[in-house]
Amino acid sequence: MAIEIERKFLVKGNGWRNQAVGQVYRQGYMSTKDGITLRARVAGSKGYLTIKGPSVGNSRAEYEYEIPLADAEEMLNTLCGSRLIEKIRYRIYHGEFLWEVDEFAGDNLGLIMAEVELSYENQTVELPEWIGEEVSQDKRYTNSNLSKNPWKNWSSI
Amino acid sequence: MAIEIERKFLVKGNGWRNQAVGQVYRQGYMSTKDGITLRARVAGSKGYLTIKGPSVGNSRAEYEYEIPLADAEEMLNTLCGSRLIEKIRYRIYHGEFLWEVDEFAGDNLGLIMAEVELSYENQTVELPEWIGEEVSQDKRYTNSNLSKNPWKNWSSI
Repeated sequence: MAIEIERKFLVKGNGWRNQAVGQVYRQGYMSTKDGITLRARVAGSKGYLTIKGPSVGNSRAEYEYEIPLADAEEMLNTLCGSRLIEKIRYRIYHGEFLWEVDEFAGDNLGLIMAEVELSYENQTVELPEWIGEEVSQDKRYTNSNLSKNPWKNWSSI
Repeated sequence: MAIEIERKFLVKGNGWRNQAVGQVYRQGYMSTKDGITLRARVAGSKGYLTIKGPSVGNSRAEYEYEIPLADAEEMLNTLCGSRLIEKIRYRIYHGEFLWEVDEFAGDNLGLIMAEVELSYENQTVELPEWIGEEVSQDKRYTNSNLSKNPWKNWSSI
């Protein structure tokens, strides 16, 4: 297992784009409760299955396994219902940190978020100038919630 | 993916024991809904993660992956709450079929069930003489349900 400790921000402007190479992610969520997340993901030609435990602060237990691409595709098609997310993920190094910028499509089109993974809670991170409002604690912005209640339904932007 | 097609029976008597070698299984269930099952299992020195889809007749989509033993143990300890099953599984060949006999422990002590996996729905199976009542369609007997509502709570035996 890994403990995933991350902070999440909205992205402002396009200052990040010139350094960025993107990959299409398609992912879906199976029906869980009590803070458990069960996600199938297709990233390029690879499939992944991920379980996340309940959040404590910015931390969450995370187990991720590579699985056959065909299995991941089938799970998206048969076990996730309409709870699907499509986005382009860009990986951007800034100082010692890797930022993952997600540009959403579909019903979350217009939403661009950046995540940074920390080694420990309260680690100091230098924020790139294209980082906007922090939304780490706003559960509406989890991908799992965005698959149920997409951004277009509640964003005032 | 595999489609799992199986029939499930209560076991009567001890006629199956002389052929049987057992292995301890410890497994737990994470919180899911809408017919999805998410199971972690420790069988001897191996760990497994299994997702099952909703049942249709005796059939169910099933995805099973071997995972690190330490991950499976952690999931049992931290993500499954009290939804744990302990049993000894015996594998018994009878004719062309492999029977899996589960002798439960803990709150399901006294329950012994046998499962046989079919190649297709309605395949004819010769039943060993130690096979009792069929419970394929009785949802109380799924391991997932037995982890929530154990046999001792509702058995009249």
